[in-house]
Amino acid sequence: MADQKIPYKIYLEEHEMPTSWYNVRADMKNKPAPLVNPGTHKPMTAEELGGVFCAELVQQEMDNDTPYIEIPEEIRNFYKMYRPSPLVRAYCLEEKLQTPAKIYYKFEGNNTSGSHKLNSAIAQAYYAKKQGLKGVTTETGAGQWGTALSMACSYLDLDCKVYMVKVSYEQKPFRREVMRTYGACVTPSPSDTTEVGRKILAEHPGTTGSLGCAISEAVEVAVSTPGYRYVLGSVLNQVLLHQSVIGLETKTAMDKYGIKPDIIIGCAGGGSNLGGLISPFMGEKLRGEADYRIIAVEPASCPSLTRGVFAYDFCDTGMVCPLAKMYTLGSDFIPAPNHAGGLRYHGMSPVLSQLYADGLMEAVSVPQTKVFEAAEQFARVEGILPAPESSHAIRVAIDEALKCKQTGEEKTILFGLTGTGYFDMVAYEKFHEGKMDDYVPTDEELQAYFDKLPKMD
Amino acid sequence: MADQKIPYKIYLEEHEMPTSWYNVRADMKNKPAPLVNPGTHKPMTAEELGGVFCAELVQQEMDNDTPYIEIPEEIRNFYKMYRPSPLVRAYCLEEKLQTPAKIYYKFEGNNTSGSHKLNSAIAQAYYAKKQGLKGVTTETGAGQWGTALSMACSYLDLDCKVYMVKVSYEQKPFRREVMRTYGACVTPSPSDTTEVGRKILAEHPGTTGSLGCAISEAVEVAVSTPGYRYVLGSVLNQVLLHQSVIGLETKTAMDKYGIKPDIIIGCAGGGSNLGGLISPFMGEKLRGEADYRIIAVEPASCPSLTRGVFAYDFCDTGMVCPLAKMYTLGSDFIPAPNHAGGLRYHGMSPVLSQLYADGLMEAVSVPQTKVFEAAEQFARVEGILPAPESSHAIRVAIDEALKCKQTGEEKTILFGLTGTGYFDMVAYEKFHEGKMDDYVPTDEELQAYFDKLPKMD
Repeated sequence: MADQKIPYKIYLEEHEMPTSWYNVRADMKNKPAPLVNPGTHKPMTAEELGGVFCAELVQQEMDNDTPYIEIPEEIRNFYKMYRPSPLVRAYCLEEKLQTPAKIYYKFEGNNTSGSHKLNSAIAQAYYAKKQGLKGVTTETGAGQWGTALSMACSYLDLDCKVYMVKVSYEQKPFRREVMRTYGACVTPSPSDTTEVGRKILAEHPGTTGSLGCAISEAVEVAVSTPGYRYVLGSVLNQVLLHQSVIGLETKTAMDKYGIKPDIIIGCAGGGSNLGGLISPFMGEKLRGEADYRIIAVEPASCPSLTRGVFAYDFCDTGMVCPLAKMYTLGSDFIPAPNHAGGLRYHGMSPVLSQLYADGLMEAVSVPQTKVFEAAEQFARVEGILPAPESSHAIRVAIDEALKCKQTGEEKTILFGLTGTGYFDMVAYEKFHEGKMDDYVPTDEELQAYFDKLPKMD
Repeated sequence: MADQKIPYKIYLEEHEMPTSWYNVRADMKNKPAPLVNPGTHKPMTAEELGGVFCAELVQQEMDNDTPYIEIPEEIRNFYKMYRPSPLVRAYCLEEKLQTPAKIYYKFEGNNTSGSHKLNSAIAQAYYAKKQGLKGVTTETGAGQWGTALSMACSYLDLDCKVYMVKVSYEQKPFRREVMRTYGACVTPSPSDTTEVGRKILAEHPGTTGSLGCAISEAVEVAVSTPGYRYVLGSVLNQVLLHQSVIGLETKTAMDKYGIKPDIIIGCAGGGSNLGGLISPFMGEKLRGEADYRIIAVEPASCPSLTRGVFAYDFCDTGMVCPLAKMYTLGSDFIPAPNHAGGLRYHGMSPVLSQLYADGLMEAVSVPQTKVFEAAEQFARVEGILPAPESSHAIRVAIDEALKCKQTGEEKTILFGLTGTGYFDMVAYEKFHEGKMDDYVPTDEELQAYFDKLPKMD
């Protein structure tokens, strides 16, 4: 059954784990555009950003030149608690598909946050602690990021305030309860605890919230409370930097066994997992040392790369954040209520946006029922119940493997399995009961959002 | 911070994984008492048992002599999908407790069943498939066993009918949904699909069910449906045999690094995890090659070892199953409704019961609020949200480590972390909100159950 040389799961030894993060920006010819001040449209200074983010994270955010940044020892020790994550050879899936393709996935779900989010959460919490802060604020949608940050803050004795999109807060009481286990204070957003929250509630009384709105509230609390800063689980350059640990481990494990991927696939919401997974491979590609086909997979109902525009836009609904140049659907965009599968942010990491604009990676969008079909197929043979987010990557990995079956090509496919779906059973239930549809926004709907993008000079 | 020689997590290589299960009965001087026919009180014959269980599993159930039984290659390949499980050095917990003790735990939660149950589920499903059966029936309480069996059956294309204790079915819709993802048919018990279910419903119209009652229904369906057999996730000798993979991996990993545990701790409901974890260590103890302090931990609200009697009793409420000689609280015993933490079976594995009766292991019972305190403390530093069941072992491991702090002894403590608590957040919520109490049955209550035990010749 199994190729004898490659084990089902490759675990690195502790001494093989990365000691530095890799900053892909250092190898990019076209750097990602800087964050700009929403009032002046001038690049944000370190001082301006320092009001929102921790000082050391501001440096990481703005550093487009240093290729390797050392991971502090405390963070490396924390990583050892749940890393290295396994690189899995999907022998069982290959056999089920009867494909000549070799499928690998890097599985990041073996920690209580249920995802890769902990990789950046511990880094951001560490720098906050080092700066002597009392606490941090953030937003969470599906709850993976909020859980990860709660875990990191609890470990470091930092206060953690989470604004959770109201619809998730109500539909996912267990997620909320996990965060409480870690001592976090969780508030449904929009709330009356912030000015921007009260404003949004007044304008849209029945709203069930959005990520963009929760970000606005978390930022307001951070900048108005002494000893607090704001932290974010995706989109930002610093987050992709921290998440490079995924790709670095993957690359080391593959090199150890002489494996070279032909295709690298990752789901893309704000870009944290995809950016982390591909980073060292993209580095080789940028430096002309190797070539890989890299595919970002997004939901058809929230298609920022495939149908958005590459422009400066707000990162939040309340427009209190800096502007970022990215593929965006407009900061007011909220996926239709039938959308069950995560990846619901309106924009995309500026780094990934630039790489995509430069033709260095592809993007595809997939309808959600096809995503859940792939999720179920995967769960039944690989023993892992995947998160809906991760299942976008599974969908395309299976499709590519089936193409290989037709052509007879023995391609090596690598994808990122970002997490587990234990808290997403409401979505699975909708799928099982045939209550899930594949609505996608019309061109006219999207155009209306694009018309509201901020006008730049 | 960390002892440099021992990594945070020890993963065996594939070639170091066990190729045989270890049958501790072979080394027991006093063998566990045989299952007896409830009518004749004579030992069950292989033929009689064959109506309920698969033929090869009957052999394993009755074999008190063969020390090692080969694990079929198909099962070994399935094991590779989610095993070896990590043996974790709890450096972070040790540091938090400021104890000189060295704490290790074998973590079995990294698969979708969320527990060690998959180790026996795949074995039982495999033998059913090999015998050419169409499907299997079982019961589940908290849902870990039902999930595990669903996964195994889905992998092997076997039909799977699960009778789920009604209160769990209603309170844990997500567990039910996971089983549906694997294609299982899940029925709340007691149900009107069986004779015994209808009888129980008629006698106790408002009942929310019990494990003993769900077992009766599952057995009835198995023996009355052509091509079906019944499978069970704990208590039986065969289950302990399959679960020995936990202890064998642990022993190999410890031997590799020259670690010798002083104390081995496991939670005990029916005994599947504890029996598996301790088996090779108990084997050494039985053969006089080594000595270990072995502690079974059970809930104070369901204290079969610490307050039960060692006697022949029914395994189920409907009294359709053979009698087993075990520590029991009586087959009618159901823990009080305030009991949130799993481990709710009225009896205990006959193997463990005999070992306990012979003074080869200790047992303690712990109140549930203390269990959840330990669970939360563990989650905050070790990055794993433990199942309530597993947290019984954590409680005693922490207590023993704190004793070492007082005495200055550098003991090595090993415990079994059987699984994750993602589907137990209702219990965590009760704990957070102070709605959990520590009711334990009175002696009079227990005596009333003991008075109803079957009279043997």
